[in-house]
Formats: sequence, structure tokens, C-alpha cells
Amino acid sequence: MPRGAQVIYPKDLAVLVLWGDVYPGATVLEAGTGSGALTMTLLRAVGPAGRVISYEIREDFARQAMRNLERFFGGADTLTLRAQDIYDGIPDSPVDRLFLDLPEPWRVAPHAAAALRPGGVWVSYVPTVPQAQQTVETLRAHGGFANLETIEALIRPWNIEGQSVRPAHRMVAHTGFITTARRVQGG
Amino acid sequence: MPRGAQVIYPKDLAVLVLWGDVYPGATVLEAGTGSGALTMTLLRAVGPAGRVISYEIREDFARQAMRNLERFFGGADTLTLRAQDIYDGIPDSPVDRLFLDLPEPWRVAPHAAAALRPGGVWVSYVPTVPQAQQTVETLRAHGGFANLETIEALIRPWNIEGQSVRPAHRMVAHTGFITTARRVQGG
Amino acid sequence: MPRGAQVIYPKDLAVLVLWGDVYPGATVLEAGTGSGALTMTLLRAVGPAGRVISYEIREDFARQAMRNLERFFGGADTLTLRAQDIYDGIPDSPVDRLFLDLPEPWRVAPHAAAALRPGGVWVSYVPTVPQAQQTVETLRAHGGFANLETIEALIRPWNIEGQSVRPAHRMVAHTGFITTARRVQGG
Amino acid sequence: MPRGAQVIYPKDLAVLVLWGDVYPGATVLEAGTGSGALTMTLLRAVGPAGRVISYEIREDFARQAMRNLERFFGGADTLTLRAQDIYDGIPDSPVDRLFLDLPEPWRVAPHAAAALRPGGVWVSYVPTVPQAQQTVETLRAHGGFANLETIEALIRPWNIEGQSVRPAHRMVAHTGFITTARRVQGG
Repeated sequence: MPRGAQVIYPKDLAVLVLWGDVYPGATVLEAGTGSGALTMTLLRAVGPAGRVISYEIREDFARQAMRNLERFFGGADTLTLRAQDIYDGIPDSPVDRLFLDLPEPWRVAPHAAAALRPGGVWVSYVPTVPQAQQTVETLRAHGGFANLETIEALIRPWNIEGQSVRPAHRMVAHTGFITTARRVQGG
Repeated sequence: MPRGAQVIYPKDLAVLVLWGDVYPGATVLEAGTGSGALTMTLLRAVGPAGRVISYEIREDFARQAMRNLERFFGGADTLTLRAQDIYDGIPDSPVDRLFLDLPEPWRVAPHAAAALRPGGVWVSYVPTVPQAQQTVETLRAHGGFANLETIEALIRPWNIEGQSVRPAHRMVAHTGFITTARRVQGG
Repeated sequence: MPRGAQVIYPKDLAVLVLWGDVYPGATVLEAGTGSGALTMTLLRAVGPAGRVISYEIREDFARQAMRNLERFFGGADTLTLRAQDIYDGIPDSPVDRLFLDLPEPWRVAPHAAAALRPGGVWVSYVPTVPQAQQTVETLRAHGGFANLETIEALIRPWNIEGQSVRPAHRMVAHTGFITTARRVQGG
Repeated sequence: MPRGAQVIYPKDLAVLVLWGDVYPGATVLEAGTGSGALTMTLLRAVGPAGRVISYEIREDFARQAMRNLERFFGGADTLTLRAQDIYDGIPDSPVDRLFLDLPEPWRVAPHAAAALRPGGVWVSYVPTVPQAQQTVETLRAHGGFANLETIEALIRPWNIEGQSVRPAHRMVAHTGFITTARRVQGG
């Protein structure tokens, strides 16, 4: 029985969109669709003049994501959902921004270099250090990407109730590492 | 000689906009304009169908913000800049979202309750705990706000160079506390 | 029914002892005994030539702490347990180090100034910001304490299993604020 | 010109000693001596009935460490300093606790298994994730170690001055990863 796609936390959605420099009117490609949480955030950020293309090879995830999008968003003309495996290539190009929420983003590097317009931005999101490491190494070796940066986003919630003013006792300590890079000439 | 306005860090811009639930087409009011960094992020997020109204009582800050906006953004029809002191009231209403980057946001609570449409969102941003505490207490006592939440956003940068895979040695440990609340009936 | 005393986390025990500069042979006074976790750590740190005096007004806590000490430590000649309320004074003096794990440490400031030898160290541990603030303000106003410092200790646990190398998903985000100060002439 | 040994931060000293479960009377082996900061902390923690053996192959580090120890500590009968390369073996055995502050702690695993008494504790401290990963993998594969744990220690300093009550603007975000394990039968 397939388990549901991982949800991306708001803290990461916030940073993915701002670090990814998504703007109204942009053409954004995302893989995979997962639960559709990032898809919805991207649709909002590109607005009615933009376009979000989302690849998802798992039919169950794609169906669930469409249901979520209908429910919370009322559907969107600006969304294209495809059953495309991005490891095989990116038929939709050029794109302004690329978001990768999948296990081996480094395998997408050559396709990304072909699909991203100059100045376009790569954003990938992985849970472990070896994945972040292999992503950075592949992008650096490729030569067609600059301004590589890897970060973690953390939110510390506070309790403020009368004199009980203090950080919450527990917090989400880790979800994923976000790597961003800009497509430049070369490579 | 007046020093320049504080810049808001990207980590906080990202969280302010997502926690503030800014959307294309929204009418957003901001005070003060400061350096214009949040203004630009809000203009992007509301898009061509939205509107950003920004209050700034310091003329030097307003002038510098306009210069920054022209340079990085090419100006914007969707921006209205006013020399209004928000502690005195909010003549522009109703608004969908309210962003407060000033020393005593709690003094704005009654004006915010009048200006925010039902379901509208309050976002304030202050550097110290007593300010966050007084903000939360005032909003809670008012009765017209729900879902109060106070958080800090942290970004941990990583160094990934060959075998040197580790968090950066130093990081920004603190900028400000972000308080959000939703305008509800009552109060 | 009385609930058990709060346990102090190892991360805080570690920092309390090192920031408190506890050394073999030291005379250390602690209030309150609580679960005895800090008591045990202090007994270890002062060794057989040192002495730990622990005040606890709640009989149930004192009994439980003694049971814990017997079980894990086999008792200790170097421990003196008293049913003394430290807000009323410190009959045992002089002492080299003072550890306060109680709600209103600032009320102990005058007694601490009398009981701590010159160069002696104050360490207090409270869960909220207003408590830390009132502690620091009282010590600073007293004039007999220097090198005031307030910190939080955080431990980030990691998962390392094959390729799954990443921080743990959740962590303890907050327990308490540790304030240290050194007794100097004056005040 | 050789640069000085890295200093270990107090936050890490505190956690190294508590996680390493150092106690009065223990026999502790350390490599390398480095600046002598950990050596001094260990000497304090084992007290006059304990013993610290410290290996350092760099003569300049050993000399500087001895100078530091003389100055801050007045020397110590309980310290033995050797010009032994721990990668070659541990002639001093058995020991109760082992502290490794060197680039390739995993190379010490077989020597550690031979030198640590049953129940003895391994503590290693490395700056990067790949080093921590290789350490954990080697100890796990060996079979003679249990309770493997890897953590980071963080200290968040606070500013408390009148109404300016807030975390410090910047902090040390990373120094090293601490791995602890207990020697058990087998391997």
C-alpha cells in the first residue's frame, strides 16, 4: 500500500519560494508534485500571468494532489500536471525556475542546464547530508551553475501566556536541506 | 545624522509573507516603509492586481525607499506611499493584510481591528521579547483577533566543499520575533 | 497529589557545572534539591574532598531525591540535605558556588551576596524570559556581582544510519535560561 | 610556521565531559593534547585520585599545552603527556574513558576496543559530517561498541539590558560533532 507523499512544512515553503526568487508571471517547473503543497504555493506566487508545470510519476500522488488543489484552491488554469519522469528529461522548456523535491536531484543537472533560461534558478530539497553533498558537487562540476548555496530553515515557536514567556518546549529540528543555484553561461 | 532604516533579512521576509498569507490581488498595508525591502517583497507577492499601501513618517526613509524601489523594481503603479503616522489611525481601509515593522505595534491594535476585513491577517515584527509580549497581550485582550502565534525564523547556512561538509561556523542568531493573528468578529 | 520535581536535562547539567566552574574540593550550595539530578552531578564534580549542601522545603521531593541518590550513587558523605527555605537566608556560609533551581532566584540575591566568598559563582536556572530578566536586573542593581551572562543550551541529535545522515526530526527546543555571575567586592 | 591548535569551546568541553561520563578517580586517555583546554577540564573532572594521559605528536603543541597547564592550573601530578601517535596504538591500558580530538578517529577503533575497559566510554569530536559518519560506521561495524550517539551542542547567548531583552544578534553556529559509544563485550 503506497503511503502518502511527504508534506513540506510552511517554514520550507516560505524559504523555497523566496530563495527561489519566484515572481508573478514566472514559468516554474516542479518535480515531483507530491502532496501539492509546494504546487499551491508556487501557483499563488506566479499569479494569473504565470505558469506552473508539475511532474509526478506516481498516479496516486498526482490524483491526491489534484484533489487537494481543487479543494483549497478551486483548480487553476495556470497549472499543467504531467506524468513525466524528470530523470528522463524536461520536455517543457525554457523555464524560469526549477523546484526539485525528489531523492536524486543531481541526476536532473544536465536536463536542468538545458531547460533553465540564463539567470534561471535551481532549487532542490533533500532530507540528508549525502544527498545535499552530491547535489552541490554535481552542480559545481557541471560548470553551468553559480551562486551555489545550501541552507536549513528553522522555526522556533514561542509560548506567550501571562508571565509564561518562553520558547516552546519542543520543535521540528529538521526536515530538509535547500540548495539553490543560478544558471549561467557555460557547462 | 539619521542612520539608515534596518534591513529585514531574507529569512524574515520569506516567513513574513508566507505566515501573512499574502496572495495575488490582495490589498496590503505596511508601516513603516523602512528600507523598502519588505515593500518590494509585498509588491511581488500581490502582483499587478494587488495593492501595497506603505506608511512612513520619516521623510529620509521614504525617499531612500523610493530610490531602492525604482532601482530594483522599476517603480510600481500598485504602490501608494504615505507620510501617515499609523499610531494616529489607518485612513486606508478595509485592507486584507497588515504588516507592522515599528517599535510599538500594540498601539496599532484598535486601528487594525477597524481597518482589517474579517479574516484579515495581522503581522508584526519586533526585536525584543517585551515588545512581542506586549503585542500578544494587547491583541488577546482586545478580543477581535484569533490564532495568535509568535515565532522566530532561523537560517543555518552550510559549507559544502569536498570533504568539508559542515554548517557554517557563525550564523545570524537573532533578528526579530514575528507575531501573526487573524481578525475575527468581536472586539 | 504533588507531581514530581522537574528533571534537569543532561545538556543543562553539563553547562551548569562548566559555566558554574565547579571544581574538586569546592563547597557548593544548591536550592532546591528537586529530583536530585543536579545534586548528583555536583557531588561528582566536587569529588570526595568537596561538599554539597542542598536545600529543599518540600519533604516529598527531599525523600525522592535521597532515594535516587542512594540508588544511583550509593549515598555520599559529602552531601548535606536541609529543609531550609533559601528565601529566608543561607545559614551555611561561606560557599564557593551557588546553584538556584527555583521560581524566584532574584529573592536570593542579598543572601547570596552574604554567603558567596569573593570570586564565588552564582548560577540560576529558570524557564521563562521574565524570570531571567528579573534575575539579571536584581543582580546588576545589587552591585556585588560581575560578569553577568545569560544563555540557553541546545543539543541537536543526529541520525547516522547508512545514507540516512541527518539531524533528528524533532528536538527539545527549550528547557531553561542559565544566568551566571561572579561575586565581587561591593554591593 | 605552524599555527596554534584549535581551541575547544566551553559549550563543547561541557558536553564532552558530561556525555563522556568522566568521574573523580577515572583514568582518562586523550589524543591529541592540542591547546590543552580539554586536558585541563579532564584533570579537574578526574580530581586528585584520577589520571589523565594525553598523547600529542606535535612537539610545538605539546610545549604550548604544558605552558598553558602550568599557568592556569599550576601543573598536575595526575597528568602524563606522551609523544605517542595514537593511530599506532595505545600502550597505556586499560583506560576508563577515551577522548579523541583528531582528524580520523575511526582509525583508533581497534586500539580503543583493546584499551577501553568493558563499560568504558569513547568520545570523539570532529568538525565535518563525513568524519562523523565514518566514525559511526566504523564503530558500528566493529561490534564492540554500543549506545552510539552523535550530537551537536549549541549555546545561544542573550542580551538583557533594560527593555532590550533578546537573543544576541550573532552566535557560533558550528564547531564540531560529538560521537559517544560504550565499550561492550564482543568485536
